[in-house]
This record gives sequence, structure tokens and C-alpha cells, in this order.
Amino acid sequence: MATSLCESMRDGTILPDGTISVSGLVDEACVAMPPRQDAEDVDARDADTPDKWIKRHKDMVRLTGRHPFNSEPPLRTLQEAGWVTPPSIHVVRNHGAVPQLSWENHRLKITGVPRPCELTMDELASGNVGAVVSIPVTFICAGNRRKEQNMTKKTIGFNWGCAAVGNSVWTGVRLCDVLAYVGVERQSREHRFVCFEGPEGELPQGETGSYGTSIDMGWALDRERDVLLAFKQNGEVLTPDHGAPLRTLLPGCIGGRMIKWLCKMWVSAEPSTSHYHFFDNRVLPPHVDSQLAQDEGWWFKPEYIINHMNINSAMFEPRHNSVFRFRDSQNTTLKVSGYAYVGGGLKIIRAEISLDGGKSWEIADLTRPEDAIAEARGTDKHWCWSWWETEVDATRLLQCQEIICRAVDSNQNMQPMNLTWNLMGMMNNCLFRVKVHPMQTPGGVAVWFEHPTQPGAETGGWMTDDAGIFDPAKASDAAPGPSGVAPKRPVAAIWRS
Amino acid sequence: MATSLCESMRDGTILPDGTISVSGLVDEACVAMPPRQDAEDVDARDADTPDKWIKRHKDMVRLTGRHPFNSEPPLRTLQEAGWVTPPSIHVVRNHGAVPQLSWENHRLKITGVPRPCELTMDELASGNVGAVVSIPVTFICAGNRRKEQNMTKKTIGFNWGCAAVGNSVWTGVRLCDVLAYVGVERQSREHRFVCFEGPEGELPQGETGSYGTSIDMGWALDRERDVLLAFKQNGEVLTPDHGAPLRTLLPGCIGGRMIKWLCKMWVSAEPSTSHYHFFDNRVLPPHVDSQLAQDEGWWFKPEYIINHMNINSAMFEPRHNSVFRFRDSQNTTLKVSGYAYVGGGLKIIRAEISLDGGKSWEIADLTRPEDAIAEARGTDKHWCWSWWETEVDATRLLQCQEIICRAVDSNQNMQPMNLTWNLMGMMNNCLFRVKVHPMQTPGGVAVWFEHPTQPGAETGGWMTDDAGIFDPAKASDAAPGPSGVAPKRPVAAIWRS
Repeated sequence: MATSLCESMRDGTILPDGTISVSGLVDEACVAMPPRQDAEDVDARDADTPDKWIKRHKDMVRLTGRHPFNSEPPLRTLQEAGWVTPPSIHVVRNHGAVPQLSWENHRLKITGVPRPCELTMDELASGNVGAVVSIPVTFICAGNRRKEQNMTKKTIGFNWGCAAVGNSVWTGVRLCDVLAYVGVERQSREHRFVCFEGPEGELPQGETGSYGTSIDMGWALDRERDVLLAFKQNGEVLTPDHGAPLRTLLPGCIGGRMIKWLCKMWVSAEPSTSHYHFFDNRVLPPHVDSQLAQDEGWWFKPEYIINHMNINSAMFEPRHNSVFRFRDSQNTTLKVSGYAYVGGGLKIIRAEISLDGGKSWEIADLTRPEDAIAEARGTDKHWCWSWWETEVDATRLLQCQEIICRAVDSNQNMQPMNLTWNLMGMMNNCLFRVKVHPMQTPGGVAVWFEHPTQPGAETGGWMTDDAGIFDPAKASDAAPGPSGVAPKRPVAAIWRS
Repeated sequence: MATSLCESMRDGTILPDGTISVSGLVDEACVAMPPRQDAEDVDARDADTPDKWIKRHKDMVRLTGRHPFNSEPPLRTLQEAGWVTPPSIHVVRNHGAVPQLSWENHRLKITGVPRPCELTMDELASGNVGAVVSIPVTFICAGNRRKEQNMTKKTIGFNWGCAAVGNSVWTGVRLCDVLAYVGVERQSREHRFVCFEGPEGELPQGETGSYGTSIDMGWALDRERDVLLAFKQNGEVLTPDHGAPLRTLLPGCIGGRMIKWLCKMWVSAEPSTSHYHFFDNRVLPPHVDSQLAQDEGWWFKPEYIINHMNINSAMFEPRHNSVFRFRDSQNTTLKVSGYAYVGGGLKIIRAEISLDGGKSWEIADLTRPEDAIAEARGTDKHWCWSWWETEVDATRLLQCQEIICRAVDSNQNMQPMNLTWNLMGMMNNCLFRVKVHPMQTPGGVAVWFEHPTQPGAETGGWMTDDAGIFDPAKASDAAPGPSGVAPKRPVAAIWRS
């Protein structure tokens, strides 16, 4: 049995105390679940679309109009939900209408293997194909922060803000166990790639009209890379927008490489030939525009495919259009916080801010619940975002142009200083800068903060045409530092260039 | 048997045609071996040291005096040897005298496992413990390019140039197979780390006086990460300086984490407590000096341990102190070449040069023999350096201050613009810059090139006190571009900061 070397079964059910157990080979671990925030009704905007049967959170920012549903939560909503993100406010990337598939009738067709089969959802979830495991994984659209790129020069992609990211506990069966179940336990010339496809006829392009991609067999078989065929998110069966009833979940990988509404999986000597395997999820060199990409065959050059996420970070606080007022003598420090992530199983080891344009950097405190989980799982692979927080002496704000953040990963990688444009607008991870504007108010001196952009068609942001326009109607109060005592810890400096 | 899922045995012997077969699960692959360049005699400098029995290549640059032997080859020697590096000119890091161990008498003692044992070298190499496999791996000292850091502010480490890197075919048994042989096939609370140690009493510090470290069990068991207990380099038994008769080989990892002269291995619930596990191979934040590191316990903070190499690149050509002469009408282009590497199994997807201070970048041609090898091995993990080459229109040299190179990896990581200092002087990977100096010669206008530093006590380099001093006695001719036609391909630009 493929499960002989596996952890005991964890079904990812939310426990009465509001936590969910996650898979641990070595020890037990539980994660607290956030409130679900499910919508009670279908949003009026979906009423005359093919998705009129899906209840969606009304605050989600729709980035491509009403339909298809491509959306991210307001950054504040994402932050307030906490380290674990409810499915209802989790980033969604849909290329077309959501297929109506049922748990009862859905089948996963597996071919190109010694024991081809069609598996029902009950069979997949039974524990007989492989142990059912639950793992927290941060899911990121490779287009996260694309609007910053579009403000520089238009890409072919739409305006993701910096909330195209969510972190959930995903439950499913390991792909390596499923492959063992159908008779594939090692690479061979015939068993070189695993290909995945969603429903046929779902999309306008490609021969089959389905969204598909493939991964190397080594990746697929690698237990440590935790590839799942997932059927639950945060302990409950998948919602339609997140791939119900079955999807692939590739920790550390860009969201676009994970197939929702998974229908077919096959093993082959060749990688996927799906239209979307080639014409989506690429970072082409910056001089390549649409015409050149087509003329010179850039879409087919293997070095430009993207799989693992690069290192990135952004600020939750100070929030866009928030104001810090000096009149209140309690406000002696400002709270600065955000998230940081990296792909490929690496770990964020440091988050830092700079108030002097990147000349020196100060360490923030990391909040990384995943440390205890990885310890319990007995692995050095990390799949989740880290949150970070620090506070700065408010008087320093009067002399700084901007607050910049950056992250450092366990490979000592950091984010680049400058934005590099690419045709698809993907993997933007240049330093995230929040501009600091001093201003006079009736109550005295204040500073207000401006993020680079706001998602979708929303206005505001120092990279946009609305740069520097303060909107008191939308303004909020910036949070003071929790302790009122700013730490003194510059940690890095630019030495000699 | 642990080998049931393994590739067939490849003993890494050099074939009559001068190639060595490397392990392929999927297909066959061979790698051409370079000339051995073995020394015929013991170097006079070793005559009155404990290492007086070891024959060493006389051109190796000794970085810590005569003894212990810490050395890198001249950059030109490294380049001329080719993509595979002979052991005789491969970077060596010795903390003390080399132990005199024999193949016949050496034993690997394995404890903390269900079936403790002592293995002879013949047993390890027999194929009965696990298949014998051969894999090309680039080995990098985490201190590579440290002299650049020392020129900024002295670190506690000695002056590595940019040739503390070598690429060999390593032959051994997979650690996961050895662990299976002694009864460990999965993580558990008791089986959480694998610890390694060299000979006792070898070094002055720590309880046992041995060099030791540990890795996570997940890493150790992960077939895809290719951890070896290695006994051959380029098809021949290890030389004393490279760990004869047995060492660990951790692809994608810093050299300092790999244990030479491996004597003991044990599995434990706890990581290594070796002195060197904590007081070596760390990247501390830049504000931490020796005193602060001790006072505030920075050596024991887990986030500052280093394992995987970060992304890096350097230039072979134009060589330091080489001269490009315009008088020769054949010299219309200049050849620019170098190496690039990254750890963790990632792949170098692009190397680029800039002639305008980093504002725009041009793609170089990559030479990556590993592609065919990875394909034959059926893996998406890459463990070897990439070489790159391009040529530039010579007239552009007259208007540029410097030639800069950078690499891009499959996670879209790049090198940072600026150097960041750290106490141990490790993982320096800022952009590598070669300064371009126009000058008048009897034959007409020429430009000469200056690298940042030269290894060890060697003088010269724009970062040093000898900056800008041209030494005609040491000067060589810069190579013209091979085609005489410079490609036109700017690929990246700094857009908006």
C-alpha cells in the first residue's frame, strides 16, 4: 500500500475548538481557523452571468468587470482575516465560467499509467488511495502586484493589486501516493511528466478548450514537495471558485500552474501541449512585446516558463490614504506591518524596512506560525507567508520620503530595488514603497501615506495619475506602534557600490 | 532492498573515450573529463607541515599562508580547465591538517538508528547498501568573493577571490539509501536530524575537536535532493584534500556544510551540537560585529544558519589586467564571458551584461551542459554552474565605465546591485563589475580591464589600494569576440524607481 510510509490520516475537519489539525509526521499541530465570512446571497453583479449560482463575498474587488470572476480582497480585509485566509475572501483567478461539478458525479480520469482508472471523490477521500493530509499553503497569483507594472507600461494582464495572495489549509491526497496507486513510483522515459487538465470546452482557446499544464515526474513523486490533489480548503469541501470538487495544489508554485476542477491526469514522455501551458505563466525578457513574442517564438522557449514564486513583500500598514496625527501625545510611534513570501519551499528569514531610500535597513519582528507546523511535520520546507511588524519613531517620518520594505529568504535572496517590466506582467517583486507626505491639519502637523497603486480600476496611488491627491473622505487613521517605544536596530547598509 | 527503486549502478569510472557516465533514471548521459593536471611532486611549501605527504598543484593560490591548505585556482586556470574541474585545481577549504585515512581501514560508524553498524569502504562501494551513482555537482565555498567584502570592511574570514568554486562529477551512495539500509525510511520524533562528523581531535575547538553539522531528515531522505556519501570525484577515488576516502556531498548547498573525512553519522531528535555547526557558516545581519555576536547570542539564532547557495555570477573575460587594442582592425568586438550558479536545485535561466551601470541589460549565450544531463536523469533539479559568453561592439567600450554581469534563476531571483557586509564574509553576490579604463599606447588607443580584487594577498583590483594601477608586466591581451559581430539585444531596463 502506498500509504505505508505516510502519516496517519488527517481529514482536515475543523475541530469543535475552531482549529484544524495539519499533517505532522513527527508531532501534532493545529491551526486556528478564521471566521468564514461566507456570503448569504448571490451578488447582484452575477445575476445575469453563467456564475449566477455562486455566492460571493461582496467586498471582493472584481478586476475584469463582472465576469469572469477575477478578484482579490481589499488589502485591509485580507489583513484583518489573519494569517489563515477564509475561502470567501481568497484570491480567485477564473478564465471563464465556473463549471458546475458535483462531488457525487465527478470522476478523475487517470491514463498513461500501468493501472489506468477513474476515481470518484469518495474513493480519493477514503484514505485507500493515499493518506488524506492537511497542509497550510500560501497561494499566490504570479500576477500579484501587476498594477505597478501596468503603471509603468501596459502589460497584457489586468490590474492585480498586492492582495492576490491567500493562505489556507488545503486537504487532499498526495500526488505521489495517487501515482503509486496507479503503478508509477519512479521516473522513466515513458513516465517523465504528469499532465493535468480541467473540463473540456471550458475555454475558447486550444484544441480541447481546457486549461492544462504539466510538471516533472521528479517533482510529482517528491514527498517533500507536498503536491496534493486537494478537495478541501480550511477543513471544508472546496467552493466552486476554488476548484470544487478537486484541484491540484502545488506548494511554493505560482497559482496559475495549479489546475482547478481537475478532470484528467495522465503520465507521459512529453510535457503538456495545452495552449495555456505555453501562452500563460511566462516571464519574458523586457524587450519582448506581443509582436516579437509571436515572431520569434518566445512563448516556446523553456527558460521563460515560471513555476516557483520569487521572493516578495508588501505593507499592510500604514494603509493607503491613512493619516498619522502628531497632535495626540500618545502617538509617538507608527506601526508598520506587512507580509512576505517566497516559493520553492524556502523560508523567509527576515523582513526589514528602510526610511532612507534603501541605504540602511531595520529588522521587523516576524510572525511565522508555520515554524511550529514545519517542526511538527519534520520538514525544512516552508510553504506559507510570514507576517511582520515593527514600529518607528514618528518624528523620523517628517524627514523621510517613503517607507520601503523588503524580505530575505533562506537562500539569502532579496527583492530587487527596481521594477523590471515584462509582457505578461508577472512576478513583480521590486521593493514595495509607501510614500510619506507631511501636511498641515486643523489639529496640527500630520503625515499621510500613499501606496503605489490600488487594485483594478480603483484610483489612488503614487504610481498612478492620481498621485499625491489626498482624499479625506477615504482617509483612515494610521495605527500607532503598540509599545510606543521604537526599536533601534538598523541592520544593513549599502556599503560601496 | 533499498535499491529496488534506484537507478542501475553507475560506478563513475572514466571510460576509455575520456568520458564518465552519470546517473540517469530516464536515459544515458556522459560527461567529458578534463585533463587531470595532477602534481608530480610534493610542493616545497608543504615540506615541513603535517601535509608534507600530499601532492598539490603548484599554481593553487594559498589564502592562509602555507598551512592549513586553503586555496583556489587562478581564475584563468579554472576557466581553461573547462566546465568540469579536475580535483587538483578544485577549491579546497581545510581547517587543519589533512587526516591520513586509508580506503582499507576506514569505517563509517552509524548510530541512533534501528540497525547501527560500521561500514567499510568496500561495503559502501559494493552496490549492496544502495546503488552507486555519479552526479555532476558544482561545489562552492560560501566565502566565494569574500575579498570584495574585506575591501569594504574586514570580516573574520580570509580573502577568497571568485574562484572558490569547482564543478565535478561526484560518485557515491545516496544518503536516503544508506538510511534505508540502517532502518530509517521516514521522519519521526526520534529520527528528525542526521548528524555528521569528521575525525575526532582534528581541530582545536569544540568538545570533540571534530568538524560536524547536521541536516533535516526530510532533506536527507529526499531522493530528488541527491545527497551522497561520496567516495569518487571525476571517476577516481577522492584525493586527501577533498575528503578521502569518504565525504558528504550535498548538491546545491554551501561547501562548509559538507563533511570531509566522514567518520561518524547518527540520527537524532536534535541537530548537531558541534562547535562548527554554530560558529561557522552563518550570515549575520551587517550591524553585528564579533562582540555583539557573542554578547547577544547571534550565533545561536536559527534564521542565520546558511544552507543553500544564493545566486551569483562573475566574469572570466575580459581578464583582470588585460588590454584590448583598437589598432588591430580585426578587433571590432570584445569577448565577455563568465560563470553563474545558484543553489537549492534551481536553474540559471539567463545571464546578462550591462554597459550602462545597470540601466539596461543584454542577454549572453548560456552554455549549460547540465540540461542534457538533467533530462537524462529525469529531474528538474539543477546542481551545476552555467557558463555564459557574449561579445560587445568594441567602440562601446570607450564610453562605458564598467562591464557588469548578473544572473537570473528559475525563481526569477537576481543578484543585488550593492554589497552588504556581514561578519563572516559569506554569500557575497552583489553585481560583479569589471572597470574599463581607456589609455593611449604607442600603437594607438586601448582599454584595459580591472577586476574588483585578486585572491589572497595578491595585489590589484579596483576595490583595493592598488586601484587603477596598470601593470604592463602582468598584462595580457583581451580576447576579441569570436564572430566579430556583436549581437544587439538589450533585454531589461530600469523603468521607474
